[in-house]
Amino acid sequence: MAKTIGILTGGGDCPGLNAVIRGVVKGALLHRNWQVIGIEDGFDGLLDETKIRPLGLDDVRGILPRGGTILGTTNKGTPFSRVIEKDGKKEIVDVSDEVVRTVRKKGIDAIVVVGGEGSLAIALQLMQKGIPVVGVPKTIDNDLMETDVTFGYNTALETATDALDKLHSTAESHHRVMVMEVMGRYAGWIALESGISGGADVILILEIPFTIVKICQAIDQRRRRGSRFSILVAAEGAFPSGGDRVVKSGASAGQPVERLGGIGDYVAARIATCLDMDTRVTVLGHLQRGGSPSTFDRCLGSRFGIKALELIEAEAYGQMACLRGTKIRSVPIEQAIRELKLVNPHGEMVRAAEELGIMVGR
Amino acid sequence: MAKTIGILTGGGDCPGLNAVIRGVVKGALLHRNWQVIGIEDGFDGLLDETKIRPLGLDDVRGILPRGGTILGTTNKGTPFSRVIEKDGKKEIVDVSDEVVRTVRKKGIDAIVVVGGEGSLAIALQLMQKGIPVVGVPKTIDNDLMETDVTFGYNTALETATDALDKLHSTAESHHRVMVMEVMGRYAGWIALESGISGGADVILILEIPFTIVKICQAIDQRRRRGSRFSILVAAEGAFPSGGDRVVKSGASAGQPVERLGGIGDYVAARIATCLDMDTRVTVLGHLQRGGSPSTFDRCLGSRFGIKALELIEAEAYGQMACLRGTKIRSVPIEQAIRELKLVNPHGEMVRAAEELGIMVGR
Amino acid sequence: MAKTIGILTGGGDCPGLNAVIRGVVKGALLHRNWQVIGIEDGFDGLLDETKIRPLGLDDVRGILPRGGTILGTTNKGTPFSRVIEKDGKKEIVDVSDEVVRTVRKKGIDAIVVVGGEGSLAIALQLMQKGIPVVGVPKTIDNDLMETDVTFGYNTALETATDALDKLHSTAESHHRVMVMEVMGRYAGWIALESGISGGADVILILEIPFTIVKICQAIDQRRRRGSRFSILVAAEGAFPSGGDRVVKSGASAGQPVERLGGIGDYVAARIATCLDMDTRVTVLGHLQRGGSPSTFDRCLGSRFGIKALELIEAEAYGQMACLRGTKIRSVPIEQAIRELKLVNPHGEMVRAAEELGIMVGR
Amino acid sequence: MAKTIGILTGGGDCPGLNAVIRGVVKGALLHRNWQVIGIEDGFDGLLDETKIRPLGLDDVRGILPRGGTILGTTNKGTPFSRVIEKDGKKEIVDVSDEVVRTVRKKGIDAIVVVGGEGSLAIALQLMQKGIPVVGVPKTIDNDLMETDVTFGYNTALETATDALDKLHSTAESHHRVMVMEVMGRYAGWIALESGISGGADVILILEIPFTIVKICQAIDQRRRRGSRFSILVAAEGAFPSGGDRVVKSGASAGQPVERLGGIGDYVAARIATCLDMDTRVTVLGHLQRGGSPSTFDRCLGSRFGIKALELIEAEAYGQMACLRGTKIRSVPIEQAIRELKLVNPHGEMVRAAEELGIMVGR
Repeated sequence: MAKTIGILTGGGDCPGLNAVIRGVVKGALLHRNWQVIGIEDGFDGLLDETKIRPLGLDDVRGILPRGGTILGTTNKGTPFSRVIEKDGKKEIVDVSDEVVRTVRKKGIDAIVVVGGEGSLAIALQLMQKGIPVVGVPKTIDNDLMETDVTFGYNTALETATDALDKLHSTAESHHRVMVMEVMGRYAGWIALESGISGGADVILILEIPFTIVKICQAIDQRRRRGSRFSILVAAEGAFPSGGDRVVKSGASAGQPVERLGGIGDYVAARIATCLDMDTRVTVLGHLQRGGSPSTFDRCLGSRFGIKALELIEAEAYGQMACLRGTKIRSVPIEQAIRELKLVNPHGEMVRAAEELGIMVGR
Repeated sequence: MAKTIGILTGGGDCPGLNAVIRGVVKGALLHRNWQVIGIEDGFDGLLDETKIRPLGLDDVRGILPRGGTILGTTNKGTPFSRVIEKDGKKEIVDVSDEVVRTVRKKGIDAIVVVGGEGSLAIALQLMQKGIPVVGVPKTIDNDLMETDVTFGYNTALETATDALDKLHSTAESHHRVMVMEVMGRYAGWIALESGISGGADVILILEIPFTIVKICQAIDQRRRRGSRFSILVAAEGAFPSGGDRVVKSGASAGQPVERLGGIGDYVAARIATCLDMDTRVTVLGHLQRGGSPSTFDRCLGSRFGIKALELIEAEAYGQMACLRGTKIRSVPIEQAIRELKLVNPHGEMVRAAEELGIMVGR
Repeated sequence: MAKTIGILTGGGDCPGLNAVIRGVVKGALLHRNWQVIGIEDGFDGLLDETKIRPLGLDDVRGILPRGGTILGTTNKGTPFSRVIEKDGKKEIVDVSDEVVRTVRKKGIDAIVVVGGEGSLAIALQLMQKGIPVVGVPKTIDNDLMETDVTFGYNTALETATDALDKLHSTAESHHRVMVMEVMGRYAGWIALESGISGGADVILILEIPFTIVKICQAIDQRRRRGSRFSILVAAEGAFPSGGDRVVKSGASAGQPVERLGGIGDYVAARIATCLDMDTRVTVLGHLQRGGSPSTFDRCLGSRFGIKALELIEAEAYGQMACLRGTKIRSVPIEQAIRELKLVNPHGEMVRAAEELGIMVGR
Repeated sequence: MAKTIGILTGGGDCPGLNAVIRGVVKGALLHRNWQVIGIEDGFDGLLDETKIRPLGLDDVRGILPRGGTILGTTNKGTPFSRVIEKDGKKEIVDVSDEVVRTVRKKGIDAIVVVGGEGSLAIALQLMQKGIPVVGVPKTIDNDLMETDVTFGYNTALETATDALDKLHSTAESHHRVMVMEVMGRYAGWIALESGISGGADVILILEIPFTIVKICQAIDQRRRRGSRFSILVAAEGAFPSGGDRVVKSGASAGQPVERLGGIGDYVAARIATCLDMDTRVTVLGHLQRGGSPSTFDRCLGSRFGIKALELIEAEAYGQMACLRGTKIRSVPIEQAIRELKLVNPHGEMVRAAEELGIMVGR
């Protein structure tokens, strides 16, 4: 039966989103004779009809190698409440009926929600309002349960590892400590895996608190053994044992200017003081979200897009596409968002890192 | 108990081999107080004591981002027989006792064999001669059973997909058919996955024979719909329905010069004749084996190296490290080399490709 | 005075063309209040009004990092004659008046012709018909006189050098001769400079004919000194002393299938026979024209685009933008296309290559 | 006449240094029968005989694609004075005679000094002490007079432009201001050229002071015209009109921890406050010095290495190799280091940037 399906991308952007969109559009139009409707700027689009438009083959031409998402995205969260100014006061209004009306009006039979934990939770709320939904997992941080991995993470790793390679070549020529700050506020996967692949000496992640003294000891030991340099990778979310979290790089609207610099600057400054060595900081920031998606992410995103169509075909609403080994499978969204997938401080990856001579926090 | 372990890399080279070697050396020296002995040029090294040398931390410094293998490799196969010239005649002599003697003499307790199907089969022969062996799977072609994937394949895919991206930008400016020949004499994985990720229009692999007429029809249909170009990815091993295999690019020693060009040239020439369109051929050749390993391959290789040590520690000889989902596991080598892992012509990957509008042979 | 200017890109495509187009559009619209009209598919567009369309800021958004040309291009040559079928016979008709009429009709005051030697020659013919023209040099082969270099060449070099790096890592692990065929039918710059930068052992270019015997001697000498491999870079146009040119890779429409393979295959086959060594061939082909333009090419293309506007402003018609040292200058087109800029067989670059131990033809 | 020449690399490291070293070693050993002696860690090596060692062909094998310098480098400045602790007090001692003695003792006929302004000034001091010297210019910042450009700069540009490409793809998906801090404490070339090539909206360099208000106006104007994002590139040395310089990222040994963050953090925080927009900061830091040198830098470095030999051959001491257009020439070192080459605030490059719609400070 011919269907009209909507698609939206939510949360932080991620290389591979365009591969999913393209997969959904091609699979729907070329093989199923379905219509696809693009909803712009995440769930925001559901509240603004000007952000809802049909997607054709021309719209997805040439987007496979492009980062970002042609649909735009936001981090604003639920579309069911809206802030309204009334008599000079701000009021939160429930607009969920309006959302449902818009979806019905546009003739949308089901929505493909491409997003992380937050967006998938909202997808379930849409389900509860009677809007059929299927999920496609997206997280650059690799912190989503129930899928081996998702697209975006591999591209972010490539960017971080490439940066470590570059720091190596310059670090070797001087006597210095190089600190690289990578994404990972809630999970340390990027720091851990890029640290292993980029030959870091120290990896700092939030799952394993660190102490500056021990880091300095490790660097000092390397120095005595003749190593002219040390390289640290620090996830944004890393923090000292018993210490406060350090605020992130960049500034959010409204944040006071008083405190600049993130965990990278913090660690670099401490080490410089403690060891009397020069330190240099690199903050990758949004570089990690950018760039052309890697092969892995393009292929996985494309396969997830096709899987989303198959889930709709089977009316397996509330399910999310996932990767298990080499297979594309599905799981209930509910199950996938129960908790974040953190690095196991005593798992195989951390042990492997330690056997390779890397200090991982502690 | 302190051990002395040997390591050798066999078969075609592959990005990530150095990560394995480094993992084995670091894990053995830093954490186990074992010795590591490098055996050069694959199994050849077992017949030539000058090719056997201790590996220290200095030997593996800086090799993580480097392609190839610091130990060298050969494709020559079994070390148990040697060709000897005697009275002007060539004779094959069994030298397996000599191999065993050398291994004993060097005090090697177990050997880590890093290789594909062929090398792992020889590893089992070493086992039968009483030499303890553990395996680390290696295949750029992704054609080994019992592991989701192995290192090298991901890097090869990146090279092939990057090349397709480049061809796209130039193809779009002209009215042309671009043919790219990739590795894959015995399995079509590289062509299939890079074709999906690089947005190819036609993918030719040996698992699904093709007919020139149908390819030309597909290209012609695109032309009529306004597409100025078409891009084909052909695995070396692809061949026409009912037709002969086309010989490979390059030339082996002793091969007659009469027949040049591979499947790429063949297909390009046929299409040019059939459709009266310009065609251009790119033969990636050994580019696909080269270059700095991707993050994925470095991390997987490193973890496999550590796993090999754990297998030796557990005296789980005859086992091979493998990847299952996100876990490093092991399987009997015997089980892994029973048959090649081919693309399933009716599997999810091929179907996904077809849903994306790609013609996959046939 | 407000002007309406046309822009077209002619000849083979080249990374950086979009930078020129973007520069012309931005400089014209943002700072001069001029109109820009895009002419598609090179000079062909002058014969087909449907291929002539205004270019706005939206048209050039996001094109800076993209290879190819948003205007398309052809290699077909002059627009002043057209082949017409009349009574079953083909006839060449002079349509130059029609071209002039179209330009006048569209209100085009001057045309920016972005092209190589061939396209610039046609630009001069337009001048003779009374159409004001300025030139922007474009040649991936670096064979244009009167400009130090032009955009596209640097990107092509990066692709070729990156490929040589990859071949190195795999060549080192085996005992082999790797042959890489690069562009350069009429000038050997790409082979020469990428060969120097990629550490080739032998470079073959048309400016310095080679003999197979001497190549084999050089490889054999390396082999005896312990080098396990040799790497050759061959420009398409290279040919043996006293020998015939070898035909190119790929096939033009109508070309007989009988002869496949280019100079790379030829040399590889000869060496395999002569030295009894394995050889492998990589044919970069159109990879060299593709991909995102390098920084150098984007910046130079952008500056050339702005210079073209300044030339029109100064009514310096018949002039071509050029690079002299770090300066953007201009020269008469006529002067630039008098002859091709070839590699000087006795110049500094070839001597430098030879001092670095590279055999350059001969 | 056979000579023994020394070579040292001074100042910050730079991609392409290994190309120079390799060029000097190959050209000396293969073609001139000279000896080459490597002096480690810049001028420091002249005070420590253990840092002086012969360089052979094996030492330079495989170093062409590697960043950094196999000889190491320091930023410490003149080797002619040394700090000595005597009776608990620090004293500066003139050790220039010792340096001269060491050079004589090692039989060094002339030294190739590869360095920037600072190292070349010291080279002239060596000359005054009677040690023949030739110079090879090196500056990642492109701020050296008398050469069109030198190696390292092009690679740094590629890194910065690639980063801008990545930021673009993620910026487009959100409503945000992205700030990227690049090298350039004393000259703004990297920010200017990467900003042009990477399509930045605002470029901040020290040659043209900026005001936050005007930046905010420009961003706001873009926002009103519908652009969802803006991208700023800030050179480390950029500073507000009438304002103080902002301290650099990272920390030098002994520097107080009180003040973290550099110009990037500063600008991002101000804009966030002023426009109530989210901002994100990326600090490239030493990434820009790292990585495999680009083709341009490898080729130029190699040619400079050969030129240095020719200068020694001609006994043109006190001269420095340089690039003029496409030619390798030489100039007196003295002339090259008289002043820094700054961006001309009213020159062609800045004007081109402005015509492309970029705000360059002011």
